[in-house]
Amino acid sequence: MPSAPPLCVVIAPDSFKGSISAPQATAAIAAGLRRVWGDADLRLVPLADGGEGTLDAVLSAGGMRRMARVSGADQTPVEAAYGVIAADTAMIEIAQIVGLTREAVAARAVEQRDTRGVGELMARLLDEGIRHIMVGLGGSSTNDGGAGLLVALGLRLLAADGRAVEPTPAGLAALAAIDTSGLDPRLAQTRITIMSDVNNILCGEQGATAIFGPQKGVRRDAVREIDTRLAHFAALVEAALGRGARDRPGAGAAGGLGFALLLLGGELRSGAEVVADLLGLDAALDGANWLITGEGRSDAQTLLGKTPLVAARRAALKDVPATLVSGAVDRDALPELSRHFAGCHSITFAPATLEACMADAAGLLADRAEQLARVFRAAR
Amino acid sequence: MPSAPPLCVVIAPDSFKGSISAPQATAAIAAGLRRVWGDADLRLVPLADGGEGTLDAVLSAGGMRRMARVSGADQTPVEAAYGVIAADTAMIEIAQIVGLTREAVAARAVEQRDTRGVGELMARLLDEGIRHIMVGLGGSSTNDGGAGLLVALGLRLLAADGRAVEPTPAGLAALAAIDTSGLDPRLAQTRITIMSDVNNILCGEQGATAIFGPQKGVRRDAVREIDTRLAHFAALVEAALGRGARDRPGAGAAGGLGFALLLLGGELRSGAEVVADLLGLDAALDGANWLITGEGRSDAQTLLGKTPLVAARRAALKDVPATLVSGAVDRDALPELSRHFAGCHSITFAPATLEACMADAAGLLADRAEQLARVFRAAR
Repeated sequence: MPSAPPLCVVIAPDSFKGSISAPQATAAIAAGLRRVWGDADLRLVPLADGGEGTLDAVLSAGGMRRMARVSGADQTPVEAAYGVIAADTAMIEIAQIVGLTREAVAARAVEQRDTRGVGELMARLLDEGIRHIMVGLGGSSTNDGGAGLLVALGLRLLAADGRAVEPTPAGLAALAAIDTSGLDPRLAQTRITIMSDVNNILCGEQGATAIFGPQKGVRRDAVREIDTRLAHFAALVEAALGRGARDRPGAGAAGGLGFALLLLGGELRSGAEVVADLLGLDAALDGANWLITGEGRSDAQTLLGKTPLVAARRAALKDVPATLVSGAVDRDALPELSRHFAGCHSITFAPATLEACMADAAGLLADRAEQLARVFRAAR
Repeated sequence: MPSAPPLCVVIAPDSFKGSISAPQATAAIAAGLRRVWGDADLRLVPLADGGEGTLDAVLSAGGMRRMARVSGADQTPVEAAYGVIAADTAMIEIAQIVGLTREAVAARAVEQRDTRGVGELMARLLDEGIRHIMVGLGGSSTNDGGAGLLVALGLRLLAADGRAVEPTPAGLAALAAIDTSGLDPRLAQTRITIMSDVNNILCGEQGATAIFGPQKGVRRDAVREIDTRLAHFAALVEAALGRGARDRPGAGAAGGLGFALLLLGGELRSGAEVVADLLGLDAALDGANWLITGEGRSDAQTLLGKTPLVAARRAALKDVPATLVSGAVDRDALPELSRHFAGCHSITFAPATLEACMADAAGLLADRAEQLARVFRAAR
């Protein structure tokens, strides 16, 4: 009689933000399962949502990590990692360049920050022959409507007297005209994938400045003025290019960087979906018996399409049960979460502080995965 | 085609000390499982270890709860619950009479406390025709060697001048002779089951006074003197009755109450085993697919024969996987615990304080049981 095939488990967590990366979480879960099943077929698919950690997750499956020196949000140089993941395809994480770090916030007010570094990196990628640029939005400290990015790619912002205007919220106050003649012509032959879960438009009450500005340092009483400047900038650049983007979902992502990328022909996609595709989650699920996913904290937000939900949905299409193991699970969300997950569990083994759990997240996760595997095995 | 029989789960937790009783824990787990399996055959077997909560667990399956007014450890009256669980069988929890409560400790020093109330209740049970008395030791505030119990049952303790001596550690200092002629003759026809997991002998370095005395208030520098008094008392009563007990395992349980009960012919048994027998755990496991047990805190102590281990061992004999769900699980004990349990889990869903977990133990336990059932179901 042929022996049964070994159990197959797909391990596809997001990072546990603030403690362990998705590859680390994946390795921890695998270590726990290995204690129970020495011969299981463990398929490791670290996930990400397009924000911080996306590059790590994608590069864990292949590709080359590279570094580039470009302008940070405050225009001082930063070393930004990016990945070349296929012959003509590269991935950028904008948080590497204009991330919302304590240092970035302290260095310069949000009115003085811009995204030209992102454009500089894109120009460099074009120089290298890259023709598909995947841009992970999320975690930006900027609110420039993507003006910096466009300027770095050849757009000229002009004041009424013809002088150049800074592509910052402050600079845009003097914007009178736009010259698109210098815009890099290679962009027309370049595919841009925008990875973001933010569906806000550029301006207005649901716009970038109103919704995300304050957490970046925009004073409440300055929201309307800056929003007006972005609207003015958008109107001019849309008119100059003969196409619109400011009212499309995602235009308000990353302080309006989404707008600029959409205007350049970018396609907005859920970061989690893109990463799941890149890492071959569907193929990994073929013939699998179980999927384990997780994240730092699971709550009602998870149900809005976060990485673990994307993983669970894909698993459901292949009749693979998906179990959630997170740093913390909001019990109020359990009834809804239970419609998608075959069990929602936290890594905690006892009353403990958040700090203690974060400090030992990998160990706790390995132990919890092991203990859940013991339940799973017992039921078979 | 006949449909498969419904899933059968035996639910057999101990109490979660300080928060919920074993019947409450059982009900909580059942409520959680019911959300997953509307038609499962749930068999409820609340367990206990012979200590506090034993009576509740046993009476949840039948029998009559009754109350008696007897002497407390400080000789003031207390209302003690006991159970009549068969025509001639009753169960006592000594913590109901001489329990180590804050009030008991404040009322009188340990040197002045005794166990005569336990003997009074036994005498009353004999009056009622009871001929099998099951005594749950554990949680006592006394260290009288069981002298109080024996006095209440007719033993006379005499000083050198022939006057009666108090059956307390203080009183025993004057003990010179013992008169057993008045000892209740019905005891000879009475079966006594001593429920305890304490295997200490009565005196010496591993005796009741040295090991358990200090936590009851015996000063370190008084241990030797009181130990000597108990040894003197034991020698006299053993000589008078013509049989020995002080060096038998369990003689040191409950401040020497174990000694007195052993001397009366009592049989020492693990409280958890007795309760499991009384509640028919083995029969419940017949044909079951899964057992869920638990307790307030699981650690290396659990491996020494605590209730969940007793449940797991009995389940193993019937090839039923046993999963542990406790308020807290000591991760250091996981490798050993995993040899007995198909998964060790805590009720916590997130970093939290002990107080918060205890305040909502039933809700957390129901949710955790539900989520584990979802994993179990997914694997089948």
